[in-house]
Amino acid sequence: MIVPTTSGTSAALVTIGDELLLGDRLDTNAAWIARALSDWGFEVRLHLSVGDDEARIGWAIDEALEAGEVVVVTGGLGPTSDDRTREGVAGWLGVSIEESAELVAALEARARERGGAGLSHLNRRLAGVPAGGVPLHNSRGSAPALLFEIPPTADRSARLLALLPGVPAEMKGFMEGEVGERIRARRPADASAAVSCTVHTSGLPESVLAESVEGALPSELALKVAYRPSILGVEIRLSAEGDEAEDRLRRGAFMVEELLAPYRIDHPDGDLAATVGRALSDRGQTIAVAESCTGGLMAKRLTDIPGSSSYFLGGVVSYSDAVKSALVGVPNETLAANGAVSDEVARALAEGIRARLASDIGIGITGIAGPGGAVPGKPVGTVWFGVSSRAATRGEMVRFAGTRAEIRARAVQHALRLTLLEVTGA
Amino acid sequence: MIVPTTSGTSAALVTIGDELLLGDRLDTNAAWIARALSDWGFEVRLHLSVGDDEARIGWAIDEALEAGEVVVVTGGLGPTSDDRTREGVAGWLGVSIEESAELVAALEARARERGGAGLSHLNRRLAGVPAGGVPLHNSRGSAPALLFEIPPTADRSARLLALLPGVPAEMKGFMEGEVGERIRARRPADASAAVSCTVHTSGLPESVLAESVEGALPSELALKVAYRPSILGVEIRLSAEGDEAEDRLRRGAFMVEELLAPYRIDHPDGDLAATVGRALSDRGQTIAVAESCTGGLMAKRLTDIPGSSSYFLGGVVSYSDAVKSALVGVPNETLAANGAVSDEVARALAEGIRARLASDIGIGITGIAGPGGAVPGKPVGTVWFGVSSRAATRGEMVRFAGTRAEIRARAVQHALRLTLLEVTGA
Repeated sequence: MIVPTTSGTSAALVTIGDELLLGDRLDTNAAWIARALSDWGFEVRLHLSVGDDEARIGWAIDEALEAGEVVVVTGGLGPTSDDRTREGVAGWLGVSIEESAELVAALEARARERGGAGLSHLNRRLAGVPAGGVPLHNSRGSAPALLFEIPPTADRSARLLALLPGVPAEMKGFMEGEVGERIRARRPADASAAVSCTVHTSGLPESVLAESVEGALPSELALKVAYRPSILGVEIRLSAEGDEAEDRLRRGAFMVEELLAPYRIDHPDGDLAATVGRALSDRGQTIAVAESCTGGLMAKRLTDIPGSSSYFLGGVVSYSDAVKSALVGVPNETLAANGAVSDEVARALAEGIRARLASDIGIGITGIAGPGGAVPGKPVGTVWFGVSSRAATRGEMVRFAGTRAEIRARAVQHALRLTLLEVTGA
Repeated sequence: MIVPTTSGTSAALVTIGDELLLGDRLDTNAAWIARALSDWGFEVRLHLSVGDDEARIGWAIDEALEAGEVVVVTGGLGPTSDDRTREGVAGWLGVSIEESAELVAALEARARERGGAGLSHLNRRLAGVPAGGVPLHNSRGSAPALLFEIPPTADRSARLLALLPGVPAEMKGFMEGEVGERIRARRPADASAAVSCTVHTSGLPESVLAESVEGALPSELALKVAYRPSILGVEIRLSAEGDEAEDRLRRGAFMVEELLAPYRIDHPDGDLAATVGRALSDRGQTIAVAESCTGGLMAKRLTDIPGSSSYFLGGVVSYSDAVKSALVGVPNETLAANGAVSDEVARALAEGIRARLASDIGIGITGIAGPGGAVPGKPVGTVWFGVSSRAATRGEMVRFAGTRAEIRARAVQHALRLTLLEVTGA
């Protein structure tokens, strides 16, 4: 999916609250606002988080206004004494906080509506506006947003400063409404058409991916490429600016997708289990899993997907050899002759579970997730995979690096990729 | 575990990456690091996020060093050309980037281990160290961490600057290991005697927990109490300062632990699966699981624990009714008469898996994780649990709220709690 990105209008965010700096709360507001601003064509240059402290709030707002023509601030606008954003802004502007008669009336009406005895002393703080600010009504809560037009100085152009409540639903209400409109009005009419898109991959390390992508993309496309690795794969983000940006991006994305076809995850969030599920559904096929070292994680990934009961029949977590033979029918001689972590057992697991559950595809996984369990020739990270279908059963070994959790996560991602290749016949 | 907390030592964080400012990714690293630093007694004063831009990285690090004696930076240390943290730091320090022969050797060894052809041109960038930096080996990935001792200036004392890779598992590896040690060593020896401890719980909502804890704690202990709710439970953090802080904290913690005994998770990280595993190990007992709506997550949680093969025999993910009867022996009449989501089927799953795998404990889980699948009288979130032991088999129903993922996570946490109560006879 190609989306517009940079227009060159700069923006910055400030999120305020002691809880953010204690790590007690994920800063979901920052990501949400950054995403909205990016989607509207702003270039977010800076995000600052400070605690509920007037001096630091003033400093942070100043730095943010230095970095961005539009600055969005959330948090610290509530009624309690630890909310200091009004004071921080007033101090920074060098103005006093004035009580807005209009806000007092609106807050009193709200208090009456909710059956209260009138405006409490604490809630009266919500009517305070640093001089020069324009309050906007909050339809989802009590704290108003406050907008400031900061006049240009010798060093910088005019700025828009928007203070929003930190409650996510209230912040979003403002951003999706009047504040968002006021912000978008700051984009110049001739904003350049910058666009971006993301290609999700799994199975190739970042460095190999980068070399092959950068070798394949013609420089005349002038695309910017960024890589985001995780345990499960690498996201490639392509972006283009300027003349025919969308056309160049489309051509580049097509080339990258072709180049990386066997490693590509064709899903908006890069969820390989969802892609596997769709491939099975599309073909009316079913799957069953017998997994050992991944201990239920393969089944869990498949059943994370709503509606997976239409193609996932079930599985066995064959953590002990007895279960491998009792529930999946792996012959004891196969286990004795090859050991549980072997090509033969992986294939027997895949064939056995496919036969027992009468599924189209059977997957077997057996390996050593560590930290213990290594044997000579089979270090921690050794995982054998079996893939069985009506046509054939094959085995494959991979050595994964990492912690126990990482080896398990990578092994399941690999098994999903093998499943996808089997189902799509790629 | 009682740990010292506030020492007044300041800290700041910088997270680097265009994706953060595009809002494409929640900044979970920032929250995790802030939490770790707070738990170690640092006061986190500032968090800055900037894109992959050398000048802005240099500016952000300078501001962070102004705010904190310890500065942790993540991101931008990867091998690709958009990773600019090394360059940003070198530019800010006014030094060049030198290739470390030791790092080259380590990276070459790693490439060989993984069967590669040797160190790629791109990965060679990972051996670059801005002069003065001390590289630390990354046991979970390839990019090393880089530590800088920044000498004192007229305006500020000596600083510790730690650059960590942005991949969360790698960042955590460093913070839980050598980098964390080096950071903690910066706390002054005479840090004031503030102490804290955490009690992990599962099974009670925050509001109920808070009322009962606050009703039970005598005010003369003067403890500060904070609650951190998550999908899996609530952490209660108790802290004390001043005279006899440790003694008061110990007494308060003991009271809270007694009060909440049936809901308490006696594990340093609050991992209930580890607690269950230890209880089984201690008694030489084994467990087997037959799960439907949780689709492998119960087995996954149990096998997340290293060494779980000594007590976890295996499980069945009985996503379809056919599997419930074929692999676990649930009678077809039981399924037909009661429906798959029922007391009878939950108990039959628990008894069946216990009998088939000859385990001491058998757990059955069957429910509706949603979003589809609700039937009259059985809304989404309805989950039946069966717990079977030599002594008896019992069933229990809970209605969970939340999304599909939340219902599944909560159901498994509940099943683990039931298991623990069964094993410990509480």
